[in-house]
Amino acid sequence: MTDVVKGKNYLKDYSARARPILASFLDQEIKSAEQLDMGSIPLELLKDYSKMVSEGKGIRGALIELAYKACGGEDTQKILDTGIFIELFHSAILIQDDFMDRDSFRRGIESTHKKFERIGKEIGIKTPPEHYGNSVAVCLSDTGFYYSWKVLMGAQFSPEVLVKAGQVYAEHIARLGLGQALDMSITGAENTNEKDALKVLFLKSVEYTAILPMKIGAILAGNLDKSIEDAIENYARCLGWAFQIQDDILGLYAKEEELGKPVGSDLCEGKNTLLMINLRKLGTAEQKEFQSTILGNENVTKEDVDKMKQILKDSGTLQHVLDLGWNYANEGKKHIPLITSDKEIAETLESLIEYMMERTK
Amino acid sequence: MTDVVKGKNYLKDYSARARPILASFLDQEIKSAEQLDMGSIPLELLKDYSKMVSEGKGIRGALIELAYKACGGEDTQKILDTGIFIELFHSAILIQDDFMDRDSFRRGIESTHKKFERIGKEIGIKTPPEHYGNSVAVCLSDTGFYYSWKVLMGAQFSPEVLVKAGQVYAEHIARLGLGQALDMSITGAENTNEKDALKVLFLKSVEYTAILPMKIGAILAGNLDKSIEDAIENYARCLGWAFQIQDDILGLYAKEEELGKPVGSDLCEGKNTLLMINLRKLGTAEQKEFQSTILGNENVTKEDVDKMKQILKDSGTLQHVLDLGWNYANEGKKHIPLITSDKEIAETLESLIEYMMERTK
Repeated sequence: MTDVVKGKNYLKDYSARARPILASFLDQEIKSAEQLDMGSIPLELLKDYSKMVSEGKGIRGALIELAYKACGGEDTQKILDTGIFIELFHSAILIQDDFMDRDSFRRGIESTHKKFERIGKEIGIKTPPEHYGNSVAVCLSDTGFYYSWKVLMGAQFSPEVLVKAGQVYAEHIARLGLGQALDMSITGAENTNEKDALKVLFLKSVEYTAILPMKIGAILAGNLDKSIEDAIENYARCLGWAFQIQDDILGLYAKEEELGKPVGSDLCEGKNTLLMINLRKLGTAEQKEFQSTILGNENVTKEDVDKMKQILKDSGTLQHVLDLGWNYANEGKKHIPLITSDKEIAETLESLIEYMMERTK
Repeated sequence: MTDVVKGKNYLKDYSARARPILASFLDQEIKSAEQLDMGSIPLELLKDYSKMVSEGKGIRGALIELAYKACGGEDTQKILDTGIFIELFHSAILIQDDFMDRDSFRRGIESTHKKFERIGKEIGIKTPPEHYGNSVAVCLSDTGFYYSWKVLMGAQFSPEVLVKAGQVYAEHIARLGLGQALDMSITGAENTNEKDALKVLFLKSVEYTAILPMKIGAILAGNLDKSIEDAIENYARCLGWAFQIQDDILGLYAKEEELGKPVGSDLCEGKNTLLMINLRKLGTAEQKEFQSTILGNENVTKEDVDKMKQILKDSGTLQHVLDLGWNYANEGKKHIPLITSDKEIAETLESLIEYMMERTK
């Protein structure tokens, strides 16, 4: 077993290095908005966004950096300054996710659409406050998307690699939008098929969280070696699945204060997590009956959550999904020698993919 | 007086040339989504988007092309293939606008969020259907934004100019998002100040519809002449205001079948149009009292609309706003000789800015 501390520390270190770059970019944007006299609401939105960005785990940005280094990229400042574009996008898409999932909290903080629903009431807006909150949250996410492009297009890499990176970024996120529409359409549905559920997880997590950032890191390093590109994509695919599997597990088994949202909210929302997909295959008729009553049920109680956790254990579903995750982690490690011969980077990649399964938040 | 036919025909001709390029791009994307087996909802969304895109007036794309030609750009196919990126963005942002304005129709067709609210009910989605419709409409707009980037980043221009164009695009649209948030916050508000209302119109129409496309056209042509850049920006600013002024007038005075949405919907929504801003200055106490009762009032009747039209005439507001528009058109024309010495292009620019004021839809 690899030591997961190295991967965990890499992420922590990356976040600490990225945070001031992100803060400085957004401080500048807030100043511009002030100079343009954009009014109090846009400023308040930007400040919230800035706060949200500062609390990101930094997984995607760190993967850009790691892939860049693995492909021989050496300009550490330039990749740090550039890679934050994905973190800007990520916070923006989370703002939308919270609106779409009707989540009131994110990382323990009131979500944007909820906060501005409250502010809408306070300032006596004529639009229904909920609609107002949703709308300005979407406006903020739009701005966040374009900040992300501003960083990428303004980066110090050659225009050739920036355009290539932009192509990959555009291609993947266009697909992510459709994946989210599919997710909205099958979440809470009675008869979700496994294929659709897995596709959503692939698009929203595996491809977006792992493959996209690592591909872009390799492009920015100027990698043209097809075998390295393939190995990176294979590693990233495994890491992405491990990440998503642990995400689904934490959604039920994490401590609430670490999760930043209510444990069991995936159940209320009717999310087709890997646990739910596999319980449909491994559960008894009675267990599946319980599953279908509480999945997508807004009135799920603490007892229901506990009962579901027990069912997932009893049916072997939890262990099965854990095994799946560890299989991905082990499979992913096999591709590392094809990516890099740098010992330090290889060890970090190895540790990181295991940390995906061992993280507690 | 210039002949507005040339400008009108240019737009018509541009749309006819852009439509097949847009259709072919989106057909390809629909095929990809089919190959990825994305499911019926994402496909239905894409088809609606494609239909919406095909019905655009093409003003922004045409302005990219005109500025490109005015700056000596000669590759007509390349600029046509590239300039459609802004039309892809435009249809995407209209989908969001309809959601935010709670408009049920766009160009006479059921708006995306409304249509999918209906579909959500039909497929028995657990999410409240209105929320479902809003959410998938936003997903589609996200995808549209990234299609727009896909076209720009995949264009045949040199990476240098594409990155420069991308910088300007990102910068302006990031600001547009904040402008929309400001708009949501002052629309229907009791005491909107003129400064905020004009800022919204500037960001949402003048800068986005005219300055951004023309700046990008000049960049793609490789223009480096600061005096031409300034002249283009000055012309575009005037054209943008003329466009917005006529938009506000048409919102009340157009024929409903040409407007594609109910005449007077600006009143119901409480939009701070230039007519409303100026009535606050030119109206009698009684007229302003009437204004404040019906602006943002969802129950505005046909009679209220007629009364408002009469008030705008009696108070001189309509004439004042028309004069404003024509002043912009005339001011804009003065900058044309500084942009180009090509007689044909100059005449088109001249005709187009007048057509902005004479169009009936």
